[in-house]
This record gives sequence, structure tokens and C-alpha cells, in this order.
Amino acid sequence: MKRQSAQARWEQRTQRPLLALAVAFAVAYAVPIVDDSAGYSLTELCTVVEWVVWGSFAVDYLIRLALTTGRKEFVRTHWPDLCAVLLPVLQPLRLLRLVSTLLLVGRRARMAPQIRLTTYVVGAVIGLLMFGSLAVLSVERESPHGNIRTLGDAVWWSFTTMTTVGYGDHAPTTGLGRMIAVGLMLSGIALLGVVTANIAAWFISRFEKDDVEERRQTEAIAALTEEVRLLRAEVARLAAPEAAARAGTGAGGSLSAD
Amino acid sequence: MKRQSAQARWEQRTQRPLLALAVAFAVAYAVPIVDDSAGYSLTELCTVVEWVVWGSFAVDYLIRLALTTGRKEFVRTHWPDLCAVLLPVLQPLRLLRLVSTLLLVGRRARMAPQIRLTTYVVGAVIGLLMFGSLAVLSVERESPHGNIRTLGDAVWWSFTTMTTVGYGDHAPTTGLGRMIAVGLMLSGIALLGVVTANIAAWFISRFEKDDVEERRQTEAIAALTEEVRLLRAEVARLAAPEAAARAGTGAGGSLSAD
Amino acid sequence: MKRQSAQARWEQRTQRPLLALAVAFAVAYAVPIVDDSAGYSLTELCTVVEWVVWGSFAVDYLIRLALTTGRKEFVRTHWPDLCAVLLPVLQPLRLLRLVSTLLLVGRRARMAPQIRLTTYVVGAVIGLLMFGSLAVLSVERESPHGNIRTLGDAVWWSFTTMTTVGYGDHAPTTGLGRMIAVGLMLSGIALLGVVTANIAAWFISRFEKDDVEERRQTEAIAALTEEVRLLRAEVARLAAPEAAARAGTGAGGSLSAD
Amino acid sequence: MKRQSAQARWEQRTQRPLLALAVAFAVAYAVPIVDDSAGYSLTELCTVVEWVVWGSFAVDYLIRLALTTGRKEFVRTHWPDLCAVLLPVLQPLRLLRLVSTLLLVGRRARMAPQIRLTTYVVGAVIGLLMFGSLAVLSVERESPHGNIRTLGDAVWWSFTTMTTVGYGDHAPTTGLGRMIAVGLMLSGIALLGVVTANIAAWFISRFEKDDVEERRQTEAIAALTEEVRLLRAEVARLAAPEAAARAGTGAGGSLSAD
Repeated sequence: MKRQSAQARWEQRTQRPLLALAVAFAVAYAVPIVDDSAGYSLTELCTVVEWVVWGSFAVDYLIRLALTTGRKEFVRTHWPDLCAVLLPVLQPLRLLRLVSTLLLVGRRARMAPQIRLTTYVVGAVIGLLMFGSLAVLSVERESPHGNIRTLGDAVWWSFTTMTTVGYGDHAPTTGLGRMIAVGLMLSGIALLGVVTANIAAWFISRFEKDDVEERRQTEAIAALTEEVRLLRAEVARLAAPEAAARAGTGAGGSLSAD
Repeated sequence: MKRQSAQARWEQRTQRPLLALAVAFAVAYAVPIVDDSAGYSLTELCTVVEWVVWGSFAVDYLIRLALTTGRKEFVRTHWPDLCAVLLPVLQPLRLLRLVSTLLLVGRRARMAPQIRLTTYVVGAVIGLLMFGSLAVLSVERESPHGNIRTLGDAVWWSFTTMTTVGYGDHAPTTGLGRMIAVGLMLSGIALLGVVTANIAAWFISRFEKDDVEERRQTEAIAALTEEVRLLRAEVARLAAPEAAARAGTGAGGSLSAD
Repeated sequence: MKRQSAQARWEQRTQRPLLALAVAFAVAYAVPIVDDSAGYSLTELCTVVEWVVWGSFAVDYLIRLALTTGRKEFVRTHWPDLCAVLLPVLQPLRLLRLVSTLLLVGRRARMAPQIRLTTYVVGAVIGLLMFGSLAVLSVERESPHGNIRTLGDAVWWSFTTMTTVGYGDHAPTTGLGRMIAVGLMLSGIALLGVVTANIAAWFISRFEKDDVEERRQTEAIAALTEEVRLLRAEVARLAAPEAAARAGTGAGGSLSAD
Repeated sequence: MKRQSAQARWEQRTQRPLLALAVAFAVAYAVPIVDDSAGYSLTELCTVVEWVVWGSFAVDYLIRLALTTGRKEFVRTHWPDLCAVLLPVLQPLRLLRLVSTLLLVGRRARMAPQIRLTTYVVGAVIGLLMFGSLAVLSVERESPHGNIRTLGDAVWWSFTTMTTVGYGDHAPTTGLGRMIAVGLMLSGIALLGVVTANIAAWFISRFEKDDVEERRQTEAIAALTEEVRLLRAEVARLAAPEAAARAGTGAGGSLSAD
């Protein structure tokens, strides 16, 4: 079912370059947060890289829109992409740029035909864990009452949040930090659902011995068909000499045994 | 299977107006809690709106009861509706009015034929999150040892509770607040169940290739039937001239090949 | 599949009296904990009731053992019952008596044929919640560093534990209290599993339209069988006059069309 | 499908001795942690036992590699085993030795044909709970700000972590302790998934009455086949005297009714 339209070809060809850009974004986002004492020029460079990556994905969206056949349909079904493209233009905050780039990367990744749901969710969880830690660290480090001040604490907090353990030894205190936390919690629930569903589906596929029964049925029908075929051949053979005999007495019909 | 009785027609026609009333209730409930310094007249107005909405749902219940054919059956299967109608009459507490209106809205929403379980649960979760935050805020703000004092804290606490993360940085201290918390926890478990079940059902429906096997079987049976039909036609043709021949010798039988 | 042996009859007949005894145990267990200032005679009475209930279940176990046909098999498959009967004899602690009575009640409840898994788990969860609260209260109230000192706190703590929220505002500090907590946690996980599984099974049963396809197949086979039957009748009719004709020429065979 | 190659025979024969070694490792790992005042010689002995057990599993890996037919395939599919064999050589830390031995034991246990997924996960959960408690205790006891200082606290913390309750009364403060905690959290999610999946699979297998329908189909096909067989016999009988009659008139064909 490969719809090899111009759009599909474009999506397939740009897949790898866009993945490389996503990795570049991850590095550019992480460096100024991890290396707190990074110089002005390095921070500037990272911001430029972030904008370039976001811009590439925005351009990718526009090209796909241009290549598609049903444009209204495309805009309607890809409205999160459109939001992700427009958001950083309206509000050039760093966190918004992160969210919109993550969204664009995630939407593109889902298009890759060889990626299965499990791979996608596990990848998304790891990505959210990483960026969630960095984002919370950058937000909470500046809060006066914040208790997430090192990268180690941030990663540890991300894990306790996503697995819904929630010790409470570290917790975000700012509004932005809490919004990131809610995102991590919800993706944690999705992760749990995928893990459970995978195991359940595997279990059930083993429980079901239907295939055996059904294969037996198909075999039974095949045997029956063979039986009927033999019968038909016999009737045909039976008919042939009779026709000949009848031809001899002048009372024959046109009998053709195919 | 559309039972277009008087009751069903009523339910379909009142669906939208009742939804609008539910939204009005949400606003009337939220305003006095969020705007702590709201004047007396505004608070009074909100209370009136709340009573009107509850009253509309109570009237809706009575009309449906009047329109139904099996009244005893209706009361028996809709006993939560009856409780929700009676509760605020017995105890005119604000929280009870909230619970009973939520219950009535939820019961009516479930009747809408186009709503699927997932939509229903997600809607219920968002509604509970919103009203749970407001209710806990109004209850805990007045508690001397309470630690949920702003709307932001209340929403944040609702999320940590419903996702079962439970940091413990905010927790209800009053009996009423804890009862609301238990409701949030239980609905969180239901949400998790629905998320997991959705993913599992989707997985399993993909695992099952039974349909392919079964379609093959149906095709096999069709082919077999065609084979038998051909055979019958041949036997019929075989019989016809014989009958003719036999008619010539005076020993014919009545053979009709349909 | 109703095996109406002497054992089954006994189990059916004693079901209700044993349920009543279980309720009596619940009351006798709760009274001295809730009413802290209960007099000596009342406490004594409750202890007697507890022993009587436990004794009744122990006697029930022995009678069922006597009535069963395969005794070794019975002891082997009902080893938790045996443990529950022996434990309070070896160590006459109140908590042990609670655990063993709960176990015996649970094992008997599972035997009732009309109880489905969901009912059983929900019932077990409510029972564990109630007894867990009481047991933790009685254990932690005497601990110097304990923070669960009222029945309200105990019930609230049970809910936060069983739903795996775990705020940490109340937590057991003694070994016994923690063992009760582990029991609550594990039953909470079981509850979550049952909720999810119920929803998933309901979803999947709706996803599966196999039945439609299969019914169509059965109909196809029935039609085919009718076709073959008609064919046989025709062949039989075809054979009959021929035999008669052949009988006239003296070359007949024994043909019987059944 | 028993591939009784040299490798399979080796795996079957060494299963029990390796299990015994795993138990020996558990004891050797636990003794110096639980008995804090253990003498130097006892600690030394335990370390030797640990190395011997790890060495045995490493040798087992090499022998299986030597016995297998496709070596590259074996190394590729068993890369975690290879890591587990190499890790303690590169970094002779006690914790690494624990992780790598657990990994090797787990990988070997999965090979045992009679072990089902549920048994495996439950076993792994109990093992991780036990070793997680011990490892966290040994790591956190030496941390100045640590709050997990007794074996009881460590086991209690393991339970609250694995069930994702996470009270926060005890939580690891060191990097190593937190890595162990993450392992426990993830295995807790796996446990929850297995519990839910088990219940769901059991539910669904009961929901499915397909088997009944399918058995009816198989019976229908069998009846149909019998019908066709009778028909063929009749045609054959019909053909036989005709052939004889035709043989009398010299116009016979070769008809063989099998």
C-alpha cells in the first residue's frame, strides 16, 4: 500500500537529514543549560542552531503542504504541525521553541513507515525524559524556592515523575516547571499503557489457538472439494459412453464434460 | 437499533440545551472560588444559576420518567439519577450540589449515542480535574493547616493526584478535601485503565490476522458451491436425454431438473 | 457442570451463615480499635467473637475435608486454608487472627459459583481497605514516631496507598504497619489490573466482528449441504427408472436409494 | 519443536547447577551487607564466592558459544550476555558484579523451556526487590545525608518504589542509589503490566465463544463430506451395472469406482 506520490518521496528522502537536525537541536538545547558558565558567543551559536532546526522543520511542513494533493485535508489533519510552526513566531520563548520542535520531530517520526508504535512511544519517552530534565533544570534553577538545582537532581526527578513514583524529595515550584511535570506524568501513563498492552497482546496471541482450528477447517474444505471433483469426473465418464450409445440409437444430446 | 420513542426523542432534543446549562454551572461554580473578593450580589447570582441548572436536570429526570414505558424499571436502572435529584434537597450544601449536578450531567452525557467510552472517560477526567481543583481550593483555603491556597496549587495538586504521582508537597488536610481526593484518585485509575485498554485493543486488532484466514475459507466454500452447481447441471443434462430415450421405450419417470 | 457432591451441597448451604459470621468478625474487630476507651468486658466479648468466627471457619474447613473424595488433593490445593487454620493456634496474635480469618473468608467467597472475578476483587479491595485502616491504626497508634493516630488518617492513608498515590503525609513507621502497607499496595496493583482488564476485554469484544463473518460461513456451508442433498435426490431418481429398465432386460443390480 | 543440539543439551544439563550457584551468590552478596560487623576473612570468602559464580556463568557463556552452530548470530542475539561477562573485568566494582551476575542468571533462566513469562517476571521482581534492597543499603549507608540505614528501611523503600507508591519518607540521595531506584521503578512497571495483561488475557479468553461457533462449523463440514461420499458411492453403483450392460452391447468404457 505504498502511495509513492511526490509528497511520499519527499518525506522518505528528507527523513535522515531531519533526524540529524533533531540531534543537533538536542545538543544546542542541552549545552547552555548543562554548562552554566558557557560564554555569550556559545549561547548565541546554540540559539542560532535552534532557530535553524526549527526553520528547517517549518520549511519541510510548507514543502509537504505544497506537494500534497488535498491541501485543506492536509491542513486539517496536520493542525498540530501548523501550531508548532506558528508558535515560536508569535512568542519567541526558548521553552516554546523546544516544545514546537519536539512536536514537529515527533510528527515527522510517526510518518516513517518502519517505525512501530512501541518504538515510537519508547523513543518519545526517552526524548521527553531528556528534554524534561533539561527544561525543568533551566526553569527551576532560577526559582528562589526551587529544589532542582543540578542536572542529576533534574534527571532523578524526571524518572520519579514519569514512573508516577513521586517521592516528593524534589518537586517543581514554578508554573512552567509544573507544566513540564504534567507533560512527563501524562507520557508516563502512556508508557505504562504501551508496556501493558504489548504484554497483553502477546499473551492473548498465545492464548488463541483459533488458527489451528481454522487451518483444520480449510484443510477439511480442500478435502471436500477434491472429493466433489472426483465425483464430477466420474459423472462425466459415466455420461460419455452413454452419449455414444445414444448416438448409436439416434437419440443423443450435446453433452460436454469440461 | 434506534428506539425512537417519546423518551428517546426528548433525550435527543434536550441534549444541547442541557450541555449549555452544564457549562453555565461550571462558570457559576468557578467564579466565587477563583475571584475570592467577589461581591455579595455576584455570589448570590452564581448560587441562583447553580440551583437553576440543578433544577433543569431534575425536571429532565422527571420528564424522562413520565415519558418512559416501564417506570419501575427506569427508577431501578437510574437510581443514581434519583439520588442526585434528591441529595441537594435534603442537604443544601454547595459541594453536594456540585456532586449531584456532575452526576446528572455525566449520566445524561452517557445517553448521547455518538459518544464513545474513550471520549466519555477523557471528558469526565477533564471535568473532574477542573471541579476537583476548585472544590479542594474552596475547602482547603479555610483549613488552618491547609497547604492548598491558590488556584495554581490546587490544579497542580489535582494533576499529581490523578496521575497517582503524589509528591506530597500539597495534600488535603480536611475530611471533605480528602473525599474529593479519593474521587480524583479513582478516576485517575479509570483513566489509566482506558488508556491502556485502548492501546491494547488497537494492538490486538492488528495482531489478529484471522480475518485473512477466514476470508480465504469463505472463498473456498464459494468455489466448492460453484463446483457442486456445475455437477448438478451435468447430472440434469445427463438425465434429460435418458428420460427422452426411456419415453421412447414407454418406461419413463417424471424427472424435473430445476 | 454442577458437581452436586456432599461437599458442594455443604458449601452451598453454609455460604450465607459464614457470610454473617464474617460480618460479625468485622464488627468485633473494629469496635475495640475505633472506641479506644472501650471497657474490659466489651473488649473481652469482641475477642471471644473473633475466636468463634475463626473457629467456625476452621470447622468448615475440616468438614469440607471430611466430605471430599480426594483428601490429599484437597489438602494440596487448599494449603492456604490449612495455614489460615493453623496460624492462630501457633501464635495467638490479634493481627494473625485477622489475616487468617480474612484469608478463610476470601477462599470461601471464591467458591461461590455466582461470584465473578471483578466482584471478588472489588469486594476484596473494600475489605482490605477497611481492615487495613483498622489494623494500621491499632499498630501505629502505639508507635512513638507514628503519624497515623485517628481513624480518619488511617482510612485516608489506606486510600493513598492502595491507589499508589503515596503522598507521604502519613506513612507507617513500624514493621507490622509496613507489612500491612505492602499488602494494600499489592492489592491496589491487582485492582488496577482488574479495572484495566475489564475495560480492555469490553473494548476488544466490540472490536471483534469475527462472529459476523463466521455466521456467514456457517450459512454458506448450510446452503452447500442443501445443494448436495438435492443432487443426491436427483441421482437417486435417475437411478430408479434405469434399474427398472435394466430389470426388464434381465441385467439388473441391487440399487437401494436411501 | 525441540532442537536437541549439543548446545540445547548443555543448557538443559547445566540448568540446576547454575541455579544453585545463583543462590550461593545471593547469600555471598547478602552476608557482608546484613552483618555489618562481619570479619575480614568472611568478607574475603564472600568476594571469592561472588567471583566464582560470575566466572561459572562466564564459562557457561563461552561453552555455549563454542557449541552453537551460528557463532556470529549467537554473539549478536546474546550481546547482553557478552556485556555482562566483560563488565566486571573492566571495572571490578561490587555493584557491577551484582548487575552482571543478575543479568547472566536472568538470561539463562529465560532459556529454561518450562518457565512462562509470568513466572519469569515474578521471579525477576522478587530477585530485584531483594538485591535492590541490599544494594541500596550498602550504597546509602555510607552517604552522609542518606536516610536508608537499616535493612528494614531498605526493604520498605524497595516496596514503596516498585509499587510506584513512593511515600518519600525514604529516598536514595546518591547517584548509585538512584540508578538502582530507577531499575526498581522500571521493573515495577513491568510487573504491573504483567499482572494486568494476565487478567486481561484470562478475561478475553472467556469472552471469546468463537471456539463453539468454529467447532459447529467443522462438524457441518464433516457432515457435508459424509453426504458427498454417500453420493459418490451411489454414482459408482449406478455406473457399475451400466458398464456391464454396455459390455454386453460391446460399447463399454473403463470405469473404475474406487
